[in-house]
Amino acid sequence: MQSPVALIPQLAAHIVAAGGKRLRPLLTLAAARLCGHEGTRHIRLAACVEFIHTATLLHDDVVDESALRRGQASANALFGNKPSVLVGDFLFARAFQLMVEDGSLDVLAILSAASATIAEGEVLQLVIQNDTASTEAQYLEVIEGKTAALFAAATEVGGVVADRPAAERAALRAYGRALGIAFQLIDDALDYSAEQAKLGKTVGDDFREGKITLPVLLAFARGTEEERAFWHRTIEQREQTDADLERATALMRDRGALADTVRRAEDYGAEARAALGLFPDSLARQAMIGIIDFCIARAR
Amino acid sequence: MQSPVALIPQLAAHIVAAGGKRLRPLLTLAAARLCGHEGTRHIRLAACVEFIHTATLLHDDVVDESALRRGQASANALFGNKPSVLVGDFLFARAFQLMVEDGSLDVLAILSAASATIAEGEVLQLVIQNDTASTEAQYLEVIEGKTAALFAAATEVGGVVADRPAAERAALRAYGRALGIAFQLIDDALDYSAEQAKLGKTVGDDFREGKITLPVLLAFARGTEEERAFWHRTIEQREQTDADLERATALMRDRGALADTVRRAEDYGAEARAALGLFPDSLARQAMIGIIDFCIARAR
Repeated sequence: MQSPVALIPQLAAHIVAAGGKRLRPLLTLAAARLCGHEGTRHIRLAACVEFIHTATLLHDDVVDESALRRGQASANALFGNKPSVLVGDFLFARAFQLMVEDGSLDVLAILSAASATIAEGEVLQLVIQNDTASTEAQYLEVIEGKTAALFAAATEVGGVVADRPAAERAALRAYGRALGIAFQLIDDALDYSAEQAKLGKTVGDDFREGKITLPVLLAFARGTEEERAFWHRTIEQREQTDADLERATALMRDRGALADTVRRAEDYGAEARAALGLFPDSLARQAMIGIIDFCIARAR
Repeated sequence: MQSPVALIPQLAAHIVAAGGKRLRPLLTLAAARLCGHEGTRHIRLAACVEFIHTATLLHDDVVDESALRRGQASANALFGNKPSVLVGDFLFARAFQLMVEDGSLDVLAILSAASATIAEGEVLQLVIQNDTASTEAQYLEVIEGKTAALFAAATEVGGVVADRPAAERAALRAYGRALGIAFQLIDDALDYSAEQAKLGKTVGDDFREGKITLPVLLAFARGTEEERAFWHRTIEQREQTDADLERATALMRDRGALADTVRRAEDYGAEARAALGLFPDSLARQAMIGIIDFCIARAR
C-alpha cells in the first residue's frame, strides 16, 4: 500500500483499518495448508486477493454511492469519488505486481480471469437493476461474477501454490464458488433483516438502490397483483416513502422470500462442504467447513 | 473486448471507435521492429498497452467529469459513470489476461509497474489541483506518472519481445519517457491555444478544472501581483467568469508561458531522439523519430 503520494496509503489504510472479515485471503491461506503447502508464498498471494477485493470495494462504493462501509464512513464519502477510483486502480495494479514477484503464471491467469469476471458481474448487476422482470438465472450470473469468482480463485490459488493436481484444484474452485454464492445470498437476505446492523451497512441499501436480489425476485414472483404494483413502484420506478422498506421486509417474510433465500444459501453451503470430500480430515479442512457455517450463521 | 454482458463491448467499442492516435501501441510495434523482432507477439502486447490506456481514459473521464473525448460524447456522458468505472476495470483485467497468454513475466512486471505509477500520477494530480503553490517538480512528477510511464513501458516491451539486452531496453524506456513528457507538455499547452479543437476536446478543460499545468505555473511565477490574484481566483477558488479563459490565454502568451512550454517539450523531444542513438538507422527508427516530430508539431 506504500507510495510517495501520501493520499494513497491514507485512503487505503482507511478501508483496510475499517476491518472486514478477510474471508477471501483466509481461503487462500486455508487451502494452501489443506494442500500441505509448507512455504510462505501463500501469504503474499493472500494479500493479492485482498488487494483485488479492496479495489473492487472502493469502486463499488463509488458506483453504489454508498456512504458507509464496514460501519464507518466509506472512502468515497470521506475522500471523494475521484481518489477512490484511482486508489482502487492502484491497489489492483499492485496486486498484479505482487503476483509477478511470486512468479506463477498459473496464479496470474486465475486472478486476472477472476478480475475480469468480477467486472462483468458488476456490469450485469447494473443492467438488470430496477428491472423486476429479471430472472433468477440472471441474478445467479451476477453473484457468480461479482462474488463467487473471487472466492473460487482465492481458494484455487492455495492449491496452485501447493502444486496440487487438476482434480484437487477443481475441487477447491468448486468449494470457493459454492461458498461465495452462499455468502452473497446471505448478504442479500441480511439487507432486509433486522440483523443488517451486524454488517456495518446502512439499512436497506439494496432496496433504496432498486437492486435485484433473490429476496425481491421471490417476493415479486409469489406476490398478488397489488404486491407486484408495490415492487414496481419501489424497485422499478424507485418511488419510495419512509414506510416502504418496512412493508418490503414484511412482504418478504410473508412470502417466505427471506427464509427461502437462506435455505438456498444452505444448499450451496452443503455443496461447498461436499467439494471438500476429496481431502482427508485436517485442521485446515475443519477450518474451511467452519467458514461455511460462519457465513450462513450470519443470517440466524 | 468481447463479453456475454453486451454493455461491455458496446461501451468499449464506443471509446475505441471514437479514434485516438493509437500512439502507445504504435510504440510497442515500432520498438519491436527496431529490435529486429520477426514474430507476432508484439501485436497482442500492443493491444494490452492500448487496453490499459483505454481503461485509464474511462476512469479519467469519470474523475474529470469530462463530457467529450476525442471529439465525441465521452463514455461517462453517454453511458453514465458507473459502467465507465466497471468497463475500465474489465479492460484492465483483460489486458493482464492477454499478457498471461503471452507468457512473459518481464512484460507483466513492466506493465503492472506502469499501471501502478499511472494511478500514483493521477492521485498526485488531484492532490496538487487548484494549488498555485505547486512546484514544477510536482507537475513533472504528475506527468511522468500519468503519461510518461505508459509511453516508457510500451516502448520497452518492444525490446523485451525481441529479447534485447538491458542497455537497449533502458534506451527504449528513456525514449518512451522523454517522448511521453514532451507529448503531455504539448497537450497542456494546447488546452490554452486556439488549436484545442484539433484535440477533439472541449476548450479550456484544464482551466475550468483548475488543473495545475506548466503554462499555469510559468504564468503564475512570472505574473504581477494583480495577475497572481487572477490565478488565485480562477485556479484556486475556481471563481470564473466567461471572459476569464480568454484572459488566462492572453496572460500566458504575454508571459511566454505557452512558448516556453513548447520549448520544454522540444528539449524532451531531443532527449528522446538522443536515446535512439544506440540503434542503427532503419525504417523503424525513422518512424520513431517521426513520432517525436508528430507529437511536437501538434502545437505549431
